[in-house]
Amino acid sequence: MEFVTALVFIFIACACGIVWAIFNWMAVHKIEIHHKHEGLTELLQGAEQEKIETLLEIGEHIQDGAQAFLREEYTDCSVFLAIMAVLLIFISPWSSLAFVLGAATSMLCGYLGMAIATAANYRTAFSAITSLANAFQMAYRGGCVMGFLLVSISLSILTLIIIIYNAIIVKSDENNFEDLVTMFDYVAAYGLGGSTFALFGRVGGGIYTKAADVGADLVGKVEKNLPEDSPKNPATIADNVGDNVGDIAGMGADLFGSFAESTCAALVVSSTQLRVLSEDTYVIEIGQLMYPLMVSAFGIGICILVSAYAVYISKVNHINKIESTLKFQLLLSTVALSPIIIGIAYWCLPADYVMMAADGSIQLADLKPWHAFLCSLMGLWSGLLIGYFTEYMTSHSYTPVREVAKSCGTGAATNIIYGLALGYLSTIVPIVAIAITALMSMKMLSFYGVALAALGMLSNLTIGLAIDAYGPISDNAGGIAEMSELGENVRESTDALDAAGNTTAAIGKGFAIGSAALVSLSLYGGYLTRIQTYKVGAKIDDPIIFAMLLVGAMLPYAFSAFTMKSVGKAALQMVEEVRRQLHEHPGIYAGTEEPDFRACIAISTKASLKEMIPPGLLVIVTPTAVGLFFGPYAVAGLLPGALVSGVQMAISASNTGGAWDNAKKYIEAGFYRNEAGEVKKKGSDEHKAAVIGDTVGDPLKDTSGPSLNILIKLMAILSLVLAGAFCRTGWLYKPE
Amino acid sequence: MEFVTALVFIFIACACGIVWAIFNWMAVHKIEIHHKHEGLTELLQGAEQEKIETLLEIGEHIQDGAQAFLREEYTDCSVFLAIMAVLLIFISPWSSLAFVLGAATSMLCGYLGMAIATAANYRTAFSAITSLANAFQMAYRGGCVMGFLLVSISLSILTLIIIIYNAIIVKSDENNFEDLVTMFDYVAAYGLGGSTFALFGRVGGGIYTKAADVGADLVGKVEKNLPEDSPKNPATIADNVGDNVGDIAGMGADLFGSFAESTCAALVVSSTQLRVLSEDTYVIEIGQLMYPLMVSAFGIGICILVSAYAVYISKVNHINKIESTLKFQLLLSTVALSPIIIGIAYWCLPADYVMMAADGSIQLADLKPWHAFLCSLMGLWSGLLIGYFTEYMTSHSYTPVREVAKSCGTGAATNIIYGLALGYLSTIVPIVAIAITALMSMKMLSFYGVALAALGMLSNLTIGLAIDAYGPISDNAGGIAEMSELGENVRESTDALDAAGNTTAAIGKGFAIGSAALVSLSLYGGYLTRIQTYKVGAKIDDPIIFAMLLVGAMLPYAFSAFTMKSVGKAALQMVEEVRRQLHEHPGIYAGTEEPDFRACIAISTKASLKEMIPPGLLVIVTPTAVGLFFGPYAVAGLLPGALVSGVQMAISASNTGGAWDNAKKYIEAGFYRNEAGEVKKKGSDEHKAAVIGDTVGDPLKDTSGPSLNILIKLMAILSLVLAGAFCRTGWLYKPE
Repeated sequence: MEFVTALVFIFIACACGIVWAIFNWMAVHKIEIHHKHEGLTELLQGAEQEKIETLLEIGEHIQDGAQAFLREEYTDCSVFLAIMAVLLIFISPWSSLAFVLGAATSMLCGYLGMAIATAANYRTAFSAITSLANAFQMAYRGGCVMGFLLVSISLSILTLIIIIYNAIIVKSDENNFEDLVTMFDYVAAYGLGGSTFALFGRVGGGIYTKAADVGADLVGKVEKNLPEDSPKNPATIADNVGDNVGDIAGMGADLFGSFAESTCAALVVSSTQLRVLSEDTYVIEIGQLMYPLMVSAFGIGICILVSAYAVYISKVNHINKIESTLKFQLLLSTVALSPIIIGIAYWCLPADYVMMAADGSIQLADLKPWHAFLCSLMGLWSGLLIGYFTEYMTSHSYTPVREVAKSCGTGAATNIIYGLALGYLSTIVPIVAIAITALMSMKMLSFYGVALAALGMLSNLTIGLAIDAYGPISDNAGGIAEMSELGENVRESTDALDAAGNTTAAIGKGFAIGSAALVSLSLYGGYLTRIQTYKVGAKIDDPIIFAMLLVGAMLPYAFSAFTMKSVGKAALQMVEEVRRQLHEHPGIYAGTEEPDFRACIAISTKASLKEMIPPGLLVIVTPTAVGLFFGPYAVAGLLPGALVSGVQMAISASNTGGAWDNAKKYIEAGFYRNEAGEVKKKGSDEHKAAVIGDTVGDPLKDTSGPSLNILIKLMAILSLVLAGAFCRTGWLYKPE
Repeated sequence: MEFVTALVFIFIACACGIVWAIFNWMAVHKIEIHHKHEGLTELLQGAEQEKIETLLEIGEHIQDGAQAFLREEYTDCSVFLAIMAVLLIFISPWSSLAFVLGAATSMLCGYLGMAIATAANYRTAFSAITSLANAFQMAYRGGCVMGFLLVSISLSILTLIIIIYNAIIVKSDENNFEDLVTMFDYVAAYGLGGSTFALFGRVGGGIYTKAADVGADLVGKVEKNLPEDSPKNPATIADNVGDNVGDIAGMGADLFGSFAESTCAALVVSSTQLRVLSEDTYVIEIGQLMYPLMVSAFGIGICILVSAYAVYISKVNHINKIESTLKFQLLLSTVALSPIIIGIAYWCLPADYVMMAADGSIQLADLKPWHAFLCSLMGLWSGLLIGYFTEYMTSHSYTPVREVAKSCGTGAATNIIYGLALGYLSTIVPIVAIAITALMSMKMLSFYGVALAALGMLSNLTIGLAIDAYGPISDNAGGIAEMSELGENVRESTDALDAAGNTTAAIGKGFAIGSAALVSLSLYGGYLTRIQTYKVGAKIDDPIIFAMLLVGAMLPYAFSAFTMKSVGKAALQMVEEVRRQLHEHPGIYAGTEEPDFRACIAISTKASLKEMIPPGLLVIVTPTAVGLFFGPYAVAGLLPGALVSGVQMAISASNTGGAWDNAKKYIEAGFYRNEAGEVKKKGSDEHKAAVIGDTVGDPLKDTSGPSLNILIKLMAILSLVLAGAFCRTGWLYKPE
């Protein structure tokens, strides 16, 4: 395929994605909120109308809080990113530039996602007054804006970088392998930039949201018996802000990182290894490397149609339809993308090609396009499998969560034991799926195959992000409805939207982890190519490799310890502030005085920005120091150690947390009956036990678990970019 | 060194060890318990004297319960072991015989340990009436019997097997390498037998003890507000029995497995690789391979002196001295053994030797005895470091546990979050210690070095076991004192003994895990030698190896999920039984009726024997099936995956559980003050939160955590024994 043809298609797809996002953005903003809103006058009584003002006010509070946090976070991170950018100039100015662009794109996408989410949340609550279908549309459209903007913007910027670097760096003479390889090495820093910012976004956002959530729950629910999202709880607004900065901006940055890195990994590996026989010499042209980007481009196109189906055709007029509609989006996009991926492979890839080892020998000969599309398809369908299995393990429609809920009958301890066991057990299916995908794709196309599998899994990322971002939007909508004391009907609608959102959030996390594992593995492949181990081999029984495999496997534990303690510490500060306010201002509990939301927001902001530094440094400093002191082979053990251990922890942490959350919701919804057949709801001992589980699960599922994705990806891409430096240093340890 | 000289020393050491054990056994049994006991008549008033009868009765209940369980467990396991023994005949009848001997030794040691522990526990409670020093002596002497019997018996049986196999299998002609290699391959099944039984001992015992403990706590402490070990709680005796079958018999089997396996690993690897240049050809004689056994033999000798110091010289006349005396035993034995290990190396090992690869090429030339003793010393001192660090993380004398206790101020959820974080954090130091030991010893002597490091760590195993077994003996003593309602003074003494026991138990677990990691690594080395990867290399980037590395890292999670759910399920049955008894017989709670202890014992016995099957099969079937279907390389990925992931989980699970237990004890002892400065003890909300943490920690620290040691060791030795079979099968996957 010609380079230019590919570019045309990519930019058309990106343009369509952006237009569709803007269109949805406008649809969300079209809802003007005032109590004279058409059709509402009949629905709302006099007193009710005033509540709309409250709703608007709270929405603005959340918006302001989220923007204030992002402003501070971006300022703090910019300093760190600038230092890294300067250091990267020593590798190459081009790397430094790509790094800055990657970080900037990640920031931009996080900001835009957050902007639409905070605009959609109170509009969703507002729309729930009129109908469930309207509310669902509002939340889902908000999610679509996030999904399509993120993927389209990042793909188009990456493509632009490739065009410019190609024009400047690659000479047009025949033997331009090395130029291409060098160029994609520079481009890889785009992924590094994205992931570095994602690290702080995920960790900082995760600490923010859970400090607020745990703090709010500990005083509000446990001590004072306030309902969730009670306007009397000073930490409520911070909690809602947290959903946006953690689950929207953080998640967006995370998946942007996965997307950028897997594309970079595919480009780096393929430019080094993919060759076509032409007139007795092996050559490759840049156009033939565009397959991965084309998959993403067509993914955008297909997902526009799929999401339009949800927006215009499916009618979510009953709460039973919410979860199935969202799940169907995932299935539909997977099914629709499958033939497309096959078609693109035959269209874009050379009819015959070979994979080459770094030493110039041919590794795998006679490759056909079907090898490539099989890798992508395996990734795509494993993603669906992981998503659906995650839903099975974390939704209270199925046995596992119900068992956890049942264990609350004997108290919090058995709830915790069952929940932990559920999370551990839930690793089996995703790990086997990832292992088979890795095995088959490595067997077919070595690490290029793994990168294609990762991109296959991410080819319906827009839909994945949309249903994922839908979650916190509806969560917030529920909170806002509660705080503005809208009627029981409205609460029922938003609660149902929220419950479905919990499950889609878990699905989204499953995707994020699965893709992170594959991305990290393909980056590791790129790293091995760079340090040229293809002859020596990264042998497990090499002393330094085994020792570092062990140390690498320890890093996710150290990282989780840091992040969980950070949440604990920040939550304790929040608890003290909430207790102080409730104690010094009894009017708050009586409902006559407004609590000081801003003080709580300030605590979460300050704590998260401070606490994200140690875990952040752990991820960045460890591989760098190991590489500089112990050389490239040490890192070749460290990375897979962190990968194989981190994936398990991330999956079990996310699912344990999700299961506890939904076990609590199961009890709250009145489904739980004790042995005597009595229904036990809010306020019962069973519910209290469930709340303890949920609180423990919060940092697991929203801070330490998802941050581990970034740990395994960032360590890998950082090592890839620094591979050359490691080969020249290794001061303390020389391999034989 | 001549083979015969070595044998003489080994048998003398074993004989001394057995004599010392018998001597202590007699000292324990010398205490005749009746209320006319010399010196007691003044101490005990009329009513008090009758309590001695109760004490005796309870002691017999526990003895009976423990023996009944072991009988059933041994019967059930014998069937399984017999099947495995028959299957092993296909490998070789000699392997099968060694396997049976290993399993039988493990059973014997477990039984003897249990017998002395159940004899020492009520005698310790009884001695506590007269003085703390007497009680301490009783408990510690009981531990010594266990430690010295186990190590001496297993070392002597192993040596006997070597003598007999050597006489039969090894021809006396010059070129007897291959005979030696074959012989030690057969001997390795001794370790397999020990470890296979240990699996069921650990898992079954772990489920037994925690089902009883959790069940007793859930109803007794949480629902009915009964104190721990209340005679009104029907599950109390089962709980005390559990301490013996889980912590004594289970732990003994585990560490016997480590000891047997690391010795076998050293023999297997060294017989294949160790060579001496003699008249232009490389040879080796069996006497030159005896270094590892000599280290163990001299270890017994030194430890006799060290333990005699504790028994005769140190006076534990104040509760502050208990923990320091026990810790000093560890330090003293480590210091005393260091020069001995150096001496033995120069005495036993050839002055010059080489390591050979499987293909006959020389890997590392010009090796000296100091290479070997350095490996052993690194193991020995890492063990001490891990032990002391574990104590720091789990004793309430230091900050980490106090922080956890403090977090109980905001409820159970923060307690759980802080506890989990502590466990995760506690992996750092042990992992770095193990990694450095592995790196240095592999670098010096390849996997032989790792085996020597493991044996170095286990060279003071007798002391390790003694202070470890001391824990459950004093725990039981406390329980018995409580149940027979002995005076406050007695309880104070036994409580103090028990608290120190918690810490030494945690130290013991640290040792068990550290040695398991090194043992497993050295067995893995033996496995790699057998499948001859030294040329091809077990490359991480080989598709099947990476995929299996990932799957292997998942196994500890699946295994923990199984065991934790088993405990949960069995505990729920126990809860129901206890509730039933208390409900149907109100006289029990009033204290007028005796509860039916036997029903609870029967539930724990039945549940544990049933529930140990799935996790047991997981460990045995997985490597076997992977090897048979996917070939030897797949297992070469599976083993390190399970190793690097399992070690982390085991450490964090043990330490989290230990910390929660001691955080609770910290609050119970009245050290905890809330922010207002009030002391919060039993019955406060803080204490309730701490109890929840302790209950969650029970299955983590006593079931799933320690069982993971067996998982990583057993998978490795099983693969080593089956390596030949894997090379001939691999039906589904052929490496290139």
